[in-house]
Order: sequence, then C-alpha cells, then structure tokens
Amino acid sequence: MHRMRVRVVEDALDANGTIARANRADFDRAGVRVVNLMSAPGAGKTTLLERALPELVHGDRALRVGVLEGDIHGTLDADRLASLHVPVTQINTDAGFGGECHLDANMVRSALHAMPLERFDLLVIENVGNLVCPAEFRVGEDRRAMVISVTEGEDKPLKYPLMFRACELVVVNKIDLLPHLDFDVERLLDNIAAVHPGVERVLVSARTGQGIDRWCDWLRAAAA
Amino acid sequence: MHRMRVRVVEDALDANGTIARANRADFDRAGVRVVNLMSAPGAGKTTLLERALPELVHGDRALRVGVLEGDIHGTLDADRLASLHVPVTQINTDAGFGGECHLDANMVRSALHAMPLERFDLLVIENVGNLVCPAEFRVGEDRRAMVISVTEGEDKPLKYPLMFRACELVVVNKIDLLPHLDFDVERLLDNIAAVHPGVERVLVSARTGQGIDRWCDWLRAAAA
Repeated sequence: MHRMRVRVVEDALDANGTIARANRADFDRAGVRVVNLMSAPGAGKTTLLERALPELVHGDRALRVGVLEGDIHGTLDADRLASLHVPVTQINTDAGFGGECHLDANMVRSALHAMPLERFDLLVIENVGNLVCPAEFRVGEDRRAMVISVTEGEDKPLKYPLMFRACELVVVNKIDLLPHLDFDVERLLDNIAAVHPGVERVLVSARTGQGIDRWCDWLRAAAA
Repeated sequence: MHRMRVRVVEDALDANGTIARANRADFDRAGVRVVNLMSAPGAGKTTLLERALPELVHGDRALRVGVLEGDIHGTLDADRLASLHVPVTQINTDAGFGGECHLDANMVRSALHAMPLERFDLLVIENVGNLVCPAEFRVGEDRRAMVISVTEGEDKPLKYPLMFRACELVVVNKIDLLPHLDFDVERLLDNIAAVHPGVERVLVSARTGQGIDRWCDWLRAAAA
C-alpha cells in the first residue's frame, strides 16, 4: 500500500513538472520573473509583501509587480495587498482543488489567463502556509524564497529540511521579538547551514522595517 | 483531472476511517484515552507537553501518560520529551510513508505494537506541524486539540477553518508575547467562534506557565 502511494505521488509530481515547464515557458515569453514565496502559517509572508511592494513599485528603479495569492479559503491576504494598488489574483485551493495544502503547477496555470503577465516585471506567488508540501511542487517559478519566524523555534530546519533545501533565500522574520524570546539566532543559522549550506539569508522585521531593504534588494535581483 | 483527484482523496479518507476505527477499538480494549494534538509548525505543541506531563504524571491524581511523536524527520521532539521519563514512541513520515505532512490512521497503527497501551491512561499523539491535512485524517483518537500561537495572526481561523472546526479544544499559546505584538486576542476569539461556535478555548503561555493548569485540567478530563 505504501509502495502504491509513493508511486501515485511520483506520478503526480511528474505531471506537475510537465505543467510547471509550460508555466515557465509562458512566464519567459511574457518576460516576467517569478518568485514562489513559502512559509508556515503566520510567519509573515503577506506582511513582508506589504512592506516590500511600495518600495519596489515606486522610485527610480520602479518595478511592475503582480501577486498571485494562494489560500485554501477566502481572500483575506489578497484584500490586504489590493489596498497597495498592486494587481492581485486569488487562487483558493478549496474551490475545485479539494482543499489542497499547497499550490501546484496546474492551479497556477488555471490562473494565468486572469493575469496580464506581459505587464509585469516580477510576479510573486504567495503559497499556502505550510512548511511541507509546497516545497515538493514547482509551479514554474524562477526562484523560491521561504520565511521562518523566530517565534517558530531554532529546530525547524532540521524538522522540515526539504523546505529549507528547496529555496534560494531564507527570510528570518520577526527579529524585533528576539529580546522577548528564548531564541538563539546563531543556532537557527547553524541549522539552516546544516541542511542547505551557503543558502542566502536575510534577517528582518516586517513590523519595524529592519532589514526590509535587503529583502527588497533580493526581489529586485530576482526580477532582473 | 480534479474530479479524479477528489475521488482518490475520498477513497483514501474512506480507507483511513476504517483503520482509524480499528485503532479506536484497540485503544478502547486497552482502556486508554487518546488525544490528537495538532498545530502549525512552532506553535508550541512539544513545549506544552513538556509543561503538562510533569503535572499529570505526579501527585494525587497521577495519570499514566504515553506520547506518540509524529514528525517528518528526526527525533528532536521525542528526545525533548524522553528526558521527562514519559514513554515516547516516534513515527517519522519520511521513512516508508513518503514524507507525509500529517499522521494518518495507518501510520499510527504501525506504531501500536511498540507501545504498552494497556499501561497508559492517556496517550497523546503529537501530529506533524501543519494547519491543513492533519485535520482531515482521524487516527482513532477520542479528542482533538489544536494550538494557535498569538504570533501567527488573528486571521488563521478564517484561513484554515477545517482545523479549527475539527477540534474540541483550541489552546491559544505564547500569550506572554502579547505586550510585544500588534495582536488583538478578542479578534482571534471572535474568529474562532465564527468558524466553531462554542469550542472550548484556553489561553496559555508554555514559557511562563500561565494557564497551564487549565490545559492540564482538559487533559485530565480527556483521560477520564
């Protein structure tokens, strides 16, 4: 039974890879770079976007940014971002997708027609809050970033290694809370390095704005 | 393709229900009550057990407690709890189970032979850190509790309603951090009530011990 399950999963991942490559071809044709943003629930993905988008879309080096919001249910995050006057498209995984705990390439594909891709330099796909399955499903993105909040504990890279290995950037968020936590940042960074040596890291507080310039720099580089 | 996926999921849940009922029969035969403990990664499940177990296993109303630890990978949580001299059994979902993001009834069943069930009054099953899929898979438990940390945001019941509906208790953890957060507890409680009217809630800090007596009371009642 397990062997069968594993094979079903492998077949699903093969199909996902095929559709992800089709998405990627469409993104390339439109000239848009795509970032897949992942984390556990409540780590701060949406707040990080609320902080970064105004920086990215204004000023000398202004980028044209779109967001694709993935949630099981509702439009809370899309509503938050829409107030920034950035085009936001919502995918709900409970509507026709069985309440999936992650985005897959086919779900993203189903939303492509609703987005004017050729008018974006950068598309950020905010994945469903989950440290496990989103890491297994490429959606056609160029780069992947994940967010870990310092409230989640230093052990998470060791417990969820695939997610930390799957990304090109680890955003360590909520560092404004460090004085109030029993949390050893060096131990977290050591654990990240143990599962993904050399991965880029930025330490930020989406609440205070500390480190947000480096997060914006990474997004600008991703769009280049 | 979606319809097929939904049917595959429904078949899997049917099979899971059958095995969950077999687990439940074994638990009943052994006279052990079972709590399935769920949350997002880093909400504090293990720390809540570290706080509660010494209270439960000592004193006048001492309970015999066992723990089944579910993790994708590694034994970090089991190691933490083992130092409390409580019997802990580990299931890793990456070993033979394809790296699943939740425990299911069959995984729990595979561990039953390794636990002296008839010597426990209460078995706590600590699920994989995930706010989505664990809610879909009963494992034969009597009751389900979930933990939400106040660092995760007030919106989580609206975004992950199935998890908040699936449980008999919501533990609101890390309330010691409230003075340092932009977090409205009343709004969280309203959102919990909106998706699961009347569900029991306890507000705790696993760090300071505040409210832990009520968490212990609930576990004692679950074991009765």
